[in-house]
Amino acid sequence: MQNVNPMFINDASPLDQLGDVLHDDMVAVNKVILDRMQSDVPMIPELAGYLIAAGGKRIRPLLTLACASLFNDMSDNPKKLAAAVEFIHTATLLHDDVVDGSDQRRGKATANEVFGNQASVLVGDFLFARAFELMVETGNINALNSLARASATITEGEVLQMSLIGKTDITRDHYFKVIEAKTAALFAASCEVAPILTGKDSAPFTHYGHALGMSFQIIDDVMDYTSPKMGKDKGDDFMEGKITLPLIIAMEQADEMDKDFLKSTIANPSLDNLDDFIACLEKYNAFEQSIEIAQEYSHQASEALGNHTDLVSGSVLDDLIELPQSILNRVI
Amino acid sequence: MQNVNPMFINDASPLDQLGDVLHDDMVAVNKVILDRMQSDVPMIPELAGYLIAAGGKRIRPLLTLACASLFNDMSDNPKKLAAAVEFIHTATLLHDDVVDGSDQRRGKATANEVFGNQASVLVGDFLFARAFELMVETGNINALNSLARASATITEGEVLQMSLIGKTDITRDHYFKVIEAKTAALFAASCEVAPILTGKDSAPFTHYGHALGMSFQIIDDVMDYTSPKMGKDKGDDFMEGKITLPLIIAMEQADEMDKDFLKSTIANPSLDNLDDFIACLEKYNAFEQSIEIAQEYSHQASEALGNHTDLVSGSVLDDLIELPQSILNRVI
Repeated sequence: MQNVNPMFINDASPLDQLGDVLHDDMVAVNKVILDRMQSDVPMIPELAGYLIAAGGKRIRPLLTLACASLFNDMSDNPKKLAAAVEFIHTATLLHDDVVDGSDQRRGKATANEVFGNQASVLVGDFLFARAFELMVETGNINALNSLARASATITEGEVLQMSLIGKTDITRDHYFKVIEAKTAALFAASCEVAPILTGKDSAPFTHYGHALGMSFQIIDDVMDYTSPKMGKDKGDDFMEGKITLPLIIAMEQADEMDKDFLKSTIANPSLDNLDDFIACLEKYNAFEQSIEIAQEYSHQASEALGNHTDLVSGSVLDDLIELPQSILNRVI
Repeated sequence: MQNVNPMFINDASPLDQLGDVLHDDMVAVNKVILDRMQSDVPMIPELAGYLIAAGGKRIRPLLTLACASLFNDMSDNPKKLAAAVEFIHTATLLHDDVVDGSDQRRGKATANEVFGNQASVLVGDFLFARAFELMVETGNINALNSLARASATITEGEVLQMSLIGKTDITRDHYFKVIEAKTAALFAASCEVAPILTGKDSAPFTHYGHALGMSFQIIDDVMDYTSPKMGKDKGDDFMEGKITLPLIIAMEQADEMDKDFLKSTIANPSLDNLDDFIACLEKYNAFEQSIEIAQEYSHQASEALGNHTDLVSGSVLDDLIELPQSILNRVI
């Protein structure tokens, strides 16, 4: 069902509006991205371009630019960090797809499917190193610190997630730890580097990015069951045996028979059982309860910036404050 | 045959002597390495420890410490960068073994063989990110720049090497480009960060590290055929179809019949053909000619520091100047 919150009656989402207002800066970021993925070794721009050209939402670099614009930072530094953030994200996608053995992303064959696992591993490394070169160019050691820390945290999250595959006794705590590391950390860093660059208080932006990332990932995990995105198969997480919030909630509340069904089905996932599995999750309102938690994070994010009265108000600030709810609206 | 150069009559190699003189600093570096590979995710220290505990020569961090001692830099910074250099090197080994599908390193099963490719990819990423955290802690943006650039260069070299597999028209230029990127760049960075930390002229150290790395890799490639190291099978490069300097030299000089034999054999390597293959390389003095080129780099390295009269002379400087020749002596 479509939310008809009058705030969005003009039907341009805050993300679209940010993209419009920051259009020229995003063009400049795309130019940095294209310039810096070049190499004398032809396979590198070929493979990197395959994934980067495929698009995606570029929500992370847009967040960096939007936050930087609140501090009137018109230097090249936010653009360099926005490109670095996208490189780090792209590198993790490349390695993720190798680790998960995925063959589809955003409706296209994955890079590992087209170019091989080996090339995906090495080009991911290259993009990661290039991200650090871009960060170094800003000369800002605190911004480097933020993104270096986020990068280490992301990989810890990925390893933790991998080591939990096949286990059925995963708790909410496990789940939140994984998504904090693999998603919220880079969202938080993408936002906080903007005040860091200009020496301003970064705490509200860390809080905003973190809560937005948590909400974003929970919604992504719900949508994997309820409304798969273009090019992503319904139940991708299910088929990989990944245990996400809806399943954890259902397992907490299910009777013994349903619990056994959920446990044995996720241990040996098959598309034949997907509809019954989803029906069982629905029986315990697992999606609604997950969305409520995302809603809570979404509020936290908006409040972090809304209560930060030092910021110059304006359309970018308004869009950032509305963004968490608009992402949530995709699913409710 | 063992070289009896009277310089080494005391039979402690310069590398051993550096290890003795810098023993306490290396212990401190090992402590940093152990501390920083820790994580709440148990698989990370387990896998990283498996590879790092296996030892290896630690020549790169030792170079960083030795060069730093020439500038009397007694701060923690050289130790942090030495640990960072070892993390970067370890991360590339982890990813290399995945890319090459290797099952043995230093006489033990590779990490990917024991823990799986997926874990090796992710823990490599983690170590790489941790390396950058350590670099950030020094607060020195120029040192960061040196190591970020080297990291990008290494991966370019790895991709180039991978894209050349299976091609038989590889020239010396290709080969030198690959080893410059995958080996010499990190040797150069390991040395040059020491003067960079104290704001001194880094050019002689860049030159020294680069030339030492080139010599080191050429010798490594010769020894793959002539005197395989403990735990490494003879002809590992051959079995992977890797074209290294001895083969390139032989192909340049071989008659048509031998050239056809070398080409067809490396295209479909089999252990049955290894002895004939080596005999054919020897027929054209390919190993001697390779060693001559390594000797040239080795001289360049020693001269780069030997001619740098500003440095305080002392045993560490002497050992650094003698190191290139002593590495070469392993093979002549």
